[in-house]
Amino acid sequence: MKCSSLLIVVSGPSGTGKGTVIKALRKISPNIAVLPSVTTRSPRKGEKEGYSYYFSTREEFRNMIERDEFVEWVEYCDNYYGTPRKQLEDSLKSGSDTVLEKEVKGAIKIKEQYPDCVSIFLLPPNFEELKRRIEGRGTEEVSIIEKRLNIALEEMSYINKYDYVIINNCIKSTVKAISCITKAEKLKTGRNLDILKGIVL
Amino acid sequence: MKCSSLLIVVSGPSGTGKGTVIKALRKISPNIAVLPSVTTRSPRKGEKEGYSYYFSTREEFRNMIERDEFVEWVEYCDNYYGTPRKQLEDSLKSGSDTVLEKEVKGAIKIKEQYPDCVSIFLLPPNFEELKRRIEGRGTEEVSIIEKRLNIALEEMSYINKYDYVIINNCIKSTVKAISCITKAEKLKTGRNLDILKGIVL
Repeated sequence: MKCSSLLIVVSGPSGTGKGTVIKALRKISPNIAVLPSVTTRSPRKGEKEGYSYYFSTREEFRNMIERDEFVEWVEYCDNYYGTPRKQLEDSLKSGSDTVLEKEVKGAIKIKEQYPDCVSIFLLPPNFEELKRRIEGRGTEEVSIIEKRLNIALEEMSYINKYDYVIINNCIKSTVKAISCITKAEKLKTGRNLDILKGIVL
Repeated sequence: MKCSSLLIVVSGPSGTGKGTVIKALRKISPNIAVLPSVTTRSPRKGEKEGYSYYFSTREEFRNMIERDEFVEWVEYCDNYYGTPRKQLEDSLKSGSDTVLEKEVKGAIKIKEQYPDCVSIFLLPPNFEELKRRIEGRGTEEVSIIEKRLNIALEEMSYINKYDYVIINNCIKSTVKAISCITKAEKLKTGRNLDILKGIVL
């Protein structure tokens, strides 16, 4: 049975490993499409334009807002992040399961507009580990790290708005869990009613 | 994360392979509990008391009905089938994921009483294959086969009452799909709210 393509939103506070998980997911599922966000933040080492993010100036970003070219956009730690509407629609129409990496506010806005999307909250094993991960990245100043930790704590309170929650203890088992969620979601009766109507209903 | 045990109802028309699928599921998941139904039908070759079914006389079955000892019971092809309440509750309390093999009417009654249960409808690859399977069993009279085929067609119309639907093309992939569904269901935020409250909410 082949239901229409899924929109999968992988989310969670900064430092829970969203990026690493999605990178591993790309490797085992080459057919999924990962749609980068547009951002005004500076590229970190190794980040590639059009793969990690679409990097943009603040002016370009504001023009895109005015032209209503985002499904959602947020300001987060003094930078803008947005989901480009056309690219998302094109990806879903092409039949690919499409993955978005979203911080919490963005993910909640996506869920409001795409209620059929599958939203997954990644939890760090514990708060100490989260702190270690944010600090360990070594790419941000101390004041930004503090800010991210406080936001992370607040963001956790939105967990009950998500469909699924995974404690990201181990990349391999997290990726396996996401694959299982994807497979199970595709077997949901509600997602297959159009096809089933032709066969049995 | 460890949410409470799941009740999984594997259902579908006669001849879709429920029994074979559950047998294979027991092998790869020795920790699940498969709760047999009580039935008044005669044991088929190889069926074991307390494993395949609890076999009962019509009189014993009627006494159990009077004592309200069934979660649900149905009359199907001139035989009674019922789910024993105490055994089901005991199994769930023990912490085991518990699997029920149910025909369609029974499954729908279970879902009404246990809305959190995971209900799975097995579809045959096509109607010809279903016919072949029911005939091929070689354990029933022609009139019973006819009756089962007609019931099967009617039962398919209840598919939209189920959470998941699997086309049972291949036992191995069906069992894998059920394992994935179980894993995904355990990651649902709604099933983990009590635990999450202690950690982050």
